[in-house]
Amino acid sequence: MHRKLSLFPLNSSVNASGRLMFGKHSAVHLARLFGTPLYVYDIGTIRHNIKVYQASLQKYAGEAQLTYASKAFLCLALARLMTEENVGLDVSSAGEIFIAERAGAPAANMHLHGNNKSWRDLEAALQAGVGRFVVDNPTELERLVQLTAGRPQPVDIWLRVTPDVRVETHHRFTVTGTADSKFGLPLAQVETVAAQILTDPRFETLRLTGLHVHLGSHFHDVEPVAVAIERLLVVANSLREKYGWHLAELCPGGGWGVPYHPTDPPMPPAPFVTGLVAAVEQLCAANRLPLPKLILEPGRSLVAQAGVALYTVGSRKTIPNGRTYVSVDGGLADNPRPALYQARYTALLANRAAEPETETVAVAGPFCESGDILIDEVQLPPAQPGDVLAAPVAGAYQLSMGSNYNAALRPAVVFLDENGVKLVQRRETVEDLIRRDVGSN
Amino acid sequence: MHRKLSLFPLNSSVNASGRLMFGKHSAVHLARLFGTPLYVYDIGTIRHNIKVYQASLQKYAGEAQLTYASKAFLCLALARLMTEENVGLDVSSAGEIFIAERAGAPAANMHLHGNNKSWRDLEAALQAGVGRFVVDNPTELERLVQLTAGRPQPVDIWLRVTPDVRVETHHRFTVTGTADSKFGLPLAQVETVAAQILTDPRFETLRLTGLHVHLGSHFHDVEPVAVAIERLLVVANSLREKYGWHLAELCPGGGWGVPYHPTDPPMPPAPFVTGLVAAVEQLCAANRLPLPKLILEPGRSLVAQAGVALYTVGSRKTIPNGRTYVSVDGGLADNPRPALYQARYTALLANRAAEPETETVAVAGPFCESGDILIDEVQLPPAQPGDVLAAPVAGAYQLSMGSNYNAALRPAVVFLDENGVKLVQRRETVEDLIRRDVGSN
Repeated sequence: MHRKLSLFPLNSSVNASGRLMFGKHSAVHLARLFGTPLYVYDIGTIRHNIKVYQASLQKYAGEAQLTYASKAFLCLALARLMTEENVGLDVSSAGEIFIAERAGAPAANMHLHGNNKSWRDLEAALQAGVGRFVVDNPTELERLVQLTAGRPQPVDIWLRVTPDVRVETHHRFTVTGTADSKFGLPLAQVETVAAQILTDPRFETLRLTGLHVHLGSHFHDVEPVAVAIERLLVVANSLREKYGWHLAELCPGGGWGVPYHPTDPPMPPAPFVTGLVAAVEQLCAANRLPLPKLILEPGRSLVAQAGVALYTVGSRKTIPNGRTYVSVDGGLADNPRPALYQARYTALLANRAAEPETETVAVAGPFCESGDILIDEVQLPPAQPGDVLAAPVAGAYQLSMGSNYNAALRPAVVFLDENGVKLVQRRETVEDLIRRDVGSN
Repeated sequence: MHRKLSLFPLNSSVNASGRLMFGKHSAVHLARLFGTPLYVYDIGTIRHNIKVYQASLQKYAGEAQLTYASKAFLCLALARLMTEENVGLDVSSAGEIFIAERAGAPAANMHLHGNNKSWRDLEAALQAGVGRFVVDNPTELERLVQLTAGRPQPVDIWLRVTPDVRVETHHRFTVTGTADSKFGLPLAQVETVAAQILTDPRFETLRLTGLHVHLGSHFHDVEPVAVAIERLLVVANSLREKYGWHLAELCPGGGWGVPYHPTDPPMPPAPFVTGLVAAVEQLCAANRLPLPKLILEPGRSLVAQAGVALYTVGSRKTIPNGRTYVSVDGGLADNPRPALYQARYTALLANRAAEPETETVAVAGPFCESGDILIDEVQLPPAQPGDVLAAPVAGAYQLSMGSNYNAALRPAVVFLDENGVKLVQRRETVEDLIRRDVGSN
């Protein structure tokens, strides 16, 4: 098997003609049919990842719910898929709520995040009937009080807590659980805010049902999460003793990593979730707390591996005493992660996947920006114009952070399964670029 | 005068009520009228910058043309403005050509850039009649030969040269003129490629009229540009001697910086252009070359200062023993530069611009991403929800690199002048977010 294949969707293979296949679908054929850059999602891989999470969560002696962090990538088709699979949605704006609702996702299974939810976000969430509001700060709490005044049914809220636990991530931008963070209530303030909600009649339209922590993005270690949960349970215990409050729901966030590069270690979610479940059970037992409903919100680890970005090689250039640059037709505009996070990717040639990878090259995008280098260093067969480059682990935080830089057209997105290929987002057209321009017609 | 005011549009002031004004227009009023985030461009500032460039270019004893690097920010209204002012357009994709054409910009005054121009880009440019093709590499040259076969009139091309000159920029992503770059032909290869074009009848549909260099983004020093031009002239001289070729056009790129922060030095374009003009004249005289037409392609330095991003403060949060975070309603999605380039910005409160700035805070955006910090450290009056934050120097490489992260709606853009306020790009709607989704209705 090709050494890079383990990073691709689960049903990937190289066929007898040396072509990269996703089940029965040829990457090269898809690239020809839909053009490039093309984002391909193998739905079987997403369903598999969901099943792994859900099976591990079933070991939990309490109730559990898997939700998907929509910010990783959201479109109508993906929201529908998550809903089919009984996966709730972690949303963070009126826009994400709109997409989720339009896809038929039940609002009761959504929870709303954000360090600075606007009036508009909160109103949209209340109108939709979003199940949980993850309150980040006292200003938001006041807004919610105003917006819910006179409601016969209280709105369920959680408090987002920054537990002052640091995790090892790949980049400082992806650390969120430290005390000096824009997110959440510092641990020292949580009890005060909770006490206010529980005792002050001004907050009677809000029902505090749970606590939330999120430590960062792209890590894979149970220990810091267990430490954070332990700290939450201390608060929960204190609130129980003082106010008879019951921690009904506990959400230790998401952020679990995936391998992006052949040199990255495997990061299977099952042992992680199992470890987390055990930690919650043990810590609740130790604190004599009944088991809360456990809610997880992975994003990347559900969809990243399912996605593959297909590009066409346009030119190659060898600098005397320098590198060889293989330029493809996408980059910074559809995948800003290399520039933003110095993310390391790999790739293979989908039409020549059986050939020896004898050349080390840099893969450059077409954009007028030196930072538009998709891969600093990758081994490939000597790439030529017309070759199809397949870059794996493209399913998360690429399109959702994509731009129209250089008036680039955002790529088409197709979903694959055993039944066939479905275009779920069409490629942008040049007309789309001026749709917001006043007097464009 | 407010110490930050020099970074804002030229007609900015603080009125008797302590409000930030752009000429007769109140920033706070604009924010209320159009909502936030709002991008405001003062057209007078853009026209002024154009005039400064054009006046300095008039000192050149040869012909000269100012062009605008569209990638900094392009919309129909801006392309129309540039055309009115006789500023050509540096474009780099079929999308930019489409916008420019739709705005009525003459294609003859456009030149097409890109390290990996697609067939589609080249076809669009040929169809539009784009004036110059800035050939980056031999693959592109071959494509152009194929696409222009049989044309009665040759197509004018330049060669983009990487002269192996390094400039001091703020970030490694913004250095482009070093030899090991994805852009252009290494100096050592230029003569070979040029000789081929000049002598091989296969290239008879292409007319080599000029040479191009671009050293990087956001620098402000004549010296390295002069060194690069000197190297080009050596090549030009050799081509003249061997093939009787005449360097008709010379484009030393753009990339000139602007101050973003009160601590940045001023970077007036006039002395820079004057110095460049003198260098070209001297170097041509020294090489006994007739003066080529001189083409400049600034982007940032024409439009950055004209743009102001207006945000509304949503919440504030002081971390015990940590920072104070003031959260606003925009950030990473409309301005990725702080995350991409660690760009340092400043801001003031548009509704309280006369108050003492007694507090040092971090300005955070609303997005679920720790890197969504607009300004790490800025002094402001103690900001409260509802205050309008005005961030200057927002006119370049913000909206053009903007995304829909967290399903954010891209901001409205208004143009201001003495005649009034004009909405030129409407704010995105949630419906826009699913426009490309198949089966969205």
